[in-house]
Amino acid sequence: MPLTNLPYLDRLLGDEAVSRHLGLEADLVAMLRFEVALARAEASAGMLDAETAGEIARKAEGFVPDVERMAVATLKDGVPAPNYVQQLRERVGGDAAAKVHFGATTQDAVDTALALKLEPVFALFEERLAAIDNAFADLLARFGDTPLMARSRMQAAIEITSGARITVWRKSVSRVALELAGQRRQMMILSLAGAAGTAEKFGDRIDAVREAMATELGLAVPDYVPHADRGRIAAFAGFLSRLTGALGKFGQDVALMVQNGIDQMAVSGGGGSSAMPHKHNPVRAEILVTLARYNATQLSAIHHALVHEQERSGTAWTLEWLVLPQMIEATGTALNHALSLLTSVERIGDPV
Amino acid sequence: MPLTNLPYLDRLLGDEAVSRHLGLEADLVAMLRFEVALARAEASAGMLDAETAGEIARKAEGFVPDVERMAVATLKDGVPAPNYVQQLRERVGGDAAAKVHFGATTQDAVDTALALKLEPVFALFEERLAAIDNAFADLLARFGDTPLMARSRMQAAIEITSGARITVWRKSVSRVALELAGQRRQMMILSLAGAAGTAEKFGDRIDAVREAMATELGLAVPDYVPHADRGRIAAFAGFLSRLTGALGKFGQDVALMVQNGIDQMAVSGGGGSSAMPHKHNPVRAEILVTLARYNATQLSAIHHALVHEQERSGTAWTLEWLVLPQMIEATGTALNHALSLLTSVERIGDPV
Amino acid sequence: MPLTNLPYLDRLLGDEAVSRHLGLEADLVAMLRFEVALARAEASAGMLDAETAGEIARKAEGFVPDVERMAVATLKDGVPAPNYVQQLRERVGGDAAAKVHFGATTQDAVDTALALKLEPVFALFEERLAAIDNAFADLLARFGDTPLMARSRMQAAIEITSGARITVWRKSVSRVALELAGQRRQMMILSLAGAAGTAEKFGDRIDAVREAMATELGLAVPDYVPHADRGRIAAFAGFLSRLTGALGKFGQDVALMVQNGIDQMAVSGGGGSSAMPHKHNPVRAEILVTLARYNATQLSAIHHALVHEQERSGTAWTLEWLVLPQMIEATGTALNHALSLLTSVERIGDPV
Amino acid sequence: MPLTNLPYLDRLLGDEAVSRHLGLEADLVAMLRFEVALARAEASAGMLDAETAGEIARKAEGFVPDVERMAVATLKDGVPAPNYVQQLRERVGGDAAAKVHFGATTQDAVDTALALKLEPVFALFEERLAAIDNAFADLLARFGDTPLMARSRMQAAIEITSGARITVWRKSVSRVALELAGQRRQMMILSLAGAAGTAEKFGDRIDAVREAMATELGLAVPDYVPHADRGRIAAFAGFLSRLTGALGKFGQDVALMVQNGIDQMAVSGGGGSSAMPHKHNPVRAEILVTLARYNATQLSAIHHALVHEQERSGTAWTLEWLVLPQMIEATGTALNHALSLLTSVERIGDPV
Repeated sequence: MPLTNLPYLDRLLGDEAVSRHLGLEADLVAMLRFEVALARAEASAGMLDAETAGEIARKAEGFVPDVERMAVATLKDGVPAPNYVQQLRERVGGDAAAKVHFGATTQDAVDTALALKLEPVFALFEERLAAIDNAFADLLARFGDTPLMARSRMQAAIEITSGARITVWRKSVSRVALELAGQRRQMMILSLAGAAGTAEKFGDRIDAVREAMATELGLAVPDYVPHADRGRIAAFAGFLSRLTGALGKFGQDVALMVQNGIDQMAVSGGGGSSAMPHKHNPVRAEILVTLARYNATQLSAIHHALVHEQERSGTAWTLEWLVLPQMIEATGTALNHALSLLTSVERIGDPV
Repeated sequence: MPLTNLPYLDRLLGDEAVSRHLGLEADLVAMLRFEVALARAEASAGMLDAETAGEIARKAEGFVPDVERMAVATLKDGVPAPNYVQQLRERVGGDAAAKVHFGATTQDAVDTALALKLEPVFALFEERLAAIDNAFADLLARFGDTPLMARSRMQAAIEITSGARITVWRKSVSRVALELAGQRRQMMILSLAGAAGTAEKFGDRIDAVREAMATELGLAVPDYVPHADRGRIAAFAGFLSRLTGALGKFGQDVALMVQNGIDQMAVSGGGGSSAMPHKHNPVRAEILVTLARYNATQLSAIHHALVHEQERSGTAWTLEWLVLPQMIEATGTALNHALSLLTSVERIGDPV
Repeated sequence: MPLTNLPYLDRLLGDEAVSRHLGLEADLVAMLRFEVALARAEASAGMLDAETAGEIARKAEGFVPDVERMAVATLKDGVPAPNYVQQLRERVGGDAAAKVHFGATTQDAVDTALALKLEPVFALFEERLAAIDNAFADLLARFGDTPLMARSRMQAAIEITSGARITVWRKSVSRVALELAGQRRQMMILSLAGAAGTAEKFGDRIDAVREAMATELGLAVPDYVPHADRGRIAAFAGFLSRLTGALGKFGQDVALMVQNGIDQMAVSGGGGSSAMPHKHNPVRAEILVTLARYNATQLSAIHHALVHEQERSGTAWTLEWLVLPQMIEATGTALNHALSLLTSVERIGDPV
Repeated sequence: MPLTNLPYLDRLLGDEAVSRHLGLEADLVAMLRFEVALARAEASAGMLDAETAGEIARKAEGFVPDVERMAVATLKDGVPAPNYVQQLRERVGGDAAAKVHFGATTQDAVDTALALKLEPVFALFEERLAAIDNAFADLLARFGDTPLMARSRMQAAIEITSGARITVWRKSVSRVALELAGQRRQMMILSLAGAAGTAEKFGDRIDAVREAMATELGLAVPDYVPHADRGRIAAFAGFLSRLTGALGKFGQDVALMVQNGIDQMAVSGGGGSSAMPHKHNPVRAEILVTLARYNATQLSAIHHALVHEQERSGTAWTLEWLVLPQMIEATGTALNHALSLLTSVERIGDPV
């Protein structure tokens, strides 16, 4: 959904699953998990009595804020957490209300929620990458030995086998896929650093609170202040763009191979045309190129956002919100198209 | 809505009006206007009998396609028009059905619909730019004479007046605004060039059909084939980015001026913080910077899309869909924030 | 030369003429013209006695600074003018020395010098664009009527003529070329605004000084402060990128048309391969694509540089220096390759 | 030198050492090392008699091609190796001549030469990063305990210590630095894959040849075909941009801290102004921001170049040449400025 403003493009350009994992519902669940885990961790570290933490957890259960009210406040505040916390406090009520979000800042909630939302996305990407690798293996088994005229600078070069080209595609993708676990580790971290990155409200309890929270949420505790150091975001975005880039190389090759007159490949299910019903367009292959160029462009914004002023930037952080979820969804879409394209291959090799 | 995937950010980062003008409902109305105007123009040029054209127009009235069906077909076709036309033909029925979309191609419908959707956006931007210019004039009247320490390389330079700085802001914006009419002229064009840009189904009636259609739709007839020549899109995107760039310069200056310790400006209504209720953040100013950097990045994708293969590119054209509407909405958002920011200024000038 | 660090790539990727027009020698001449014209204009406006101005002009003649000394100072100052002016003052000597550069700031000298350096570049581009248009006309005359299978989404569509495709190429380029005169007008301006954009040292003589200087230098006087309003730079960069984009579309089409197996075009003089002497690579066509993507990327930096802080930015202005000359040279290179490619065409049309 | 076309900017924006390591002389040495090592490795694997290999090595010693002749040929061929090899063969002469470059292709020579040229660059970056880390440690020791008003969204937040902010700077840089060894491993690889990536001229000797060559050159043998899989280049470019991004964050903070009126930091050696001799500009800090934004932009081009057609792209590979060396030099420059800036700090902490 975020990738275009026209729902009829959703299936072509969007990834319903990723969109859901990064969407409002998942986001509100993740924000709530943060706030509840914070209260519990503070209790376990002796900063809050267990009863209050329990009350916060109980009252928070199933909490869904008034989103329109949040939107109005976010326009004023620039960030969603102040109003979200306000509404959650109203829900919790009583003395416990004041203890909600204690010691945390907006960025703690939003960045930790990002990590929580990414968890199923990483799982999804892992599955799809495995399926893509299998599909490449299957292509190799079916067409690895067919002769194929290699091309350099788009001109016929020397005869190779289809297997040689398929292997380049496969390796290009699988080599990026190897980084998935490392990227997951970098991204699945707790952010709990308070107003200015020093966790000033926690004193010497901070380590205990972080450990407890991280354990509950299945996250790691970073050995740096995650607020203003956005290197992990830039590295993750680069990973996404290298992945769509590798898939885009595959897509570009397919689009060139299925050209009438080249016919090095046959793919079922090509797209139709409103003017020329006889045509058979390599839609999925082309979209892979589009998404590679899309992410190659967006990546630049994420790197500009590394210039993050002081303890927290209003401009740089917000820029991430406009770009990172879109890059993730574009990657999901590309993975889907690549898999469909791979399973629709009917022939690879020079025409006979 | 297209700018982020979280509705609570809509008011901060989105522009409800632009979003609506570019959204599904407006899009379907524009597509329908294209198809009906085409039939009528073909009738007026003697390519179609008036009765059939009338029947198409009548039956088409109020037509709304099954969007989910369109989405499924678009995944296969890569473009929305084939299925849209198919559904419209089903609605029209009888012998007239086959005459729907006659001679046109997907890109004619989609690109012409873009022009039609942009019409109210241009009007909106014109209004907002006028209001912004007035607001700058008002600032000049109120604070033009207050002393202000100029800054170069972020360091105090020499004493100037606030008026000097305000005038730079105003001129930077108004000089881009001057191009609005020209951009509108470039963008408000009819696309009717058929499967391969040669309008091959129209023979010598093409001029008459184009004239009639353009007149009905309030568009101009371009003297070039708009399918593969995307220069106007790139120029328009550049205009948008120069506009948000000028607003971003204004926003950056405001963010620097309201710094505690600098205090060259006071603005009401600053944003709150979940951790520090006493703070007063220059949210709107910062978002102007964010949106300037957002558009500066997106612009690159639109320029990559100039490399549009042959008579129609699947990859380059699609890339525009992922970027251009977002740039337009980001510009709308920036105009709104700039106006709000301008009207919230309480003081400009060195602290006394 | 600036485009790569390897001289053996200069002829492939560089444009010797543009490189010279933007190079050190031309730059120092332009800087000197600025300083001399300033002194003369100040004299003509009664701010300086004619004798002193004459002495400055006389002593300045043929002045070439110690570039290494300038480089050392520029590392400290961030800008070249302070040391350049210092060296020029040493050369002028006596009482006149103090009058050199009077009232001006670095940005006045550097930005005006840019305009002066661009003058021959505009002339060059105009010539080349005319030659390219003629070459397209020649192609039309020679191959306009040959049948050509149109392609959309890289697949065979319907039969058109080569003329239809050639016309799209020609128009795409010539429509951008039409903007050349306007871009020249925007760029060929005098910058004389002093330390903070207010020309504070000139009092009511500023208009007279500007008029006199602009007349001597063949420039226009802008109606805005050019220091911090970089819209013209961004517009010019956009023009360059739209031009290389149009040429890149032509190049991409050629690369696709000369593919073995497609053979819609024959071009003489293709490049060789160290491994496959039989090959005939569409080098010039490909480089056009490369340069289109190069400029499409660089353009983004120039638009980021619109966020120019306060009266003068150290970061944004410097970013222009790293990108704009390169974009101009890349455009020159692309124009050269396009012309060579056009004049090497041996055949366009479907193989028979 | 490649970063701008004006030598007086070389010390401000260039890095003489990196420029040398990537310049013509180093490049020709690296190309020659490739060709000689290839002959020797072929001999050791029994593909070539030892005498011929010895003759090639002997005759090649000290070989420097006619660069102008190479440039002319490169314009035609699109790549430098064919003419380079031709000239080397002329030098070697006799029967051995034909054995020069046997089995290799241009991309093998050029990509391997890139690895060889990078070796001293990695060493240099490692040294500088260590020095920067030490300088940060020194700042911590000197100013770690001074009170500092934290800032979020550019507004005063809460009191922290300078140490907290210094630690964020240090960690942001050192966390990227940790990747240096991994990047080096990825980049320091042999490319030897022949005309189409299949090393078709080597038969079953290919492993032996690669091992021998890699050992001689101090490179690793990749387990994939490096020609068309450019993931390592994109990853390396991302690393560079994350490094300059982290340094840019530091620079941006310094520029904000030294503002007159904020005075959270004092730095010696600030830059002068041609109009305002009293000024003290944070030049090095600003250049760090400039270079961060420069690399953030260039990175996009490298990711577009992932869409590398078939066995070798003429467009995508060439795009790397226009961007990657520049990114490396920009990173070198940023490291130098960061170190100078760090060692010029006189005070950090709130003004007292």
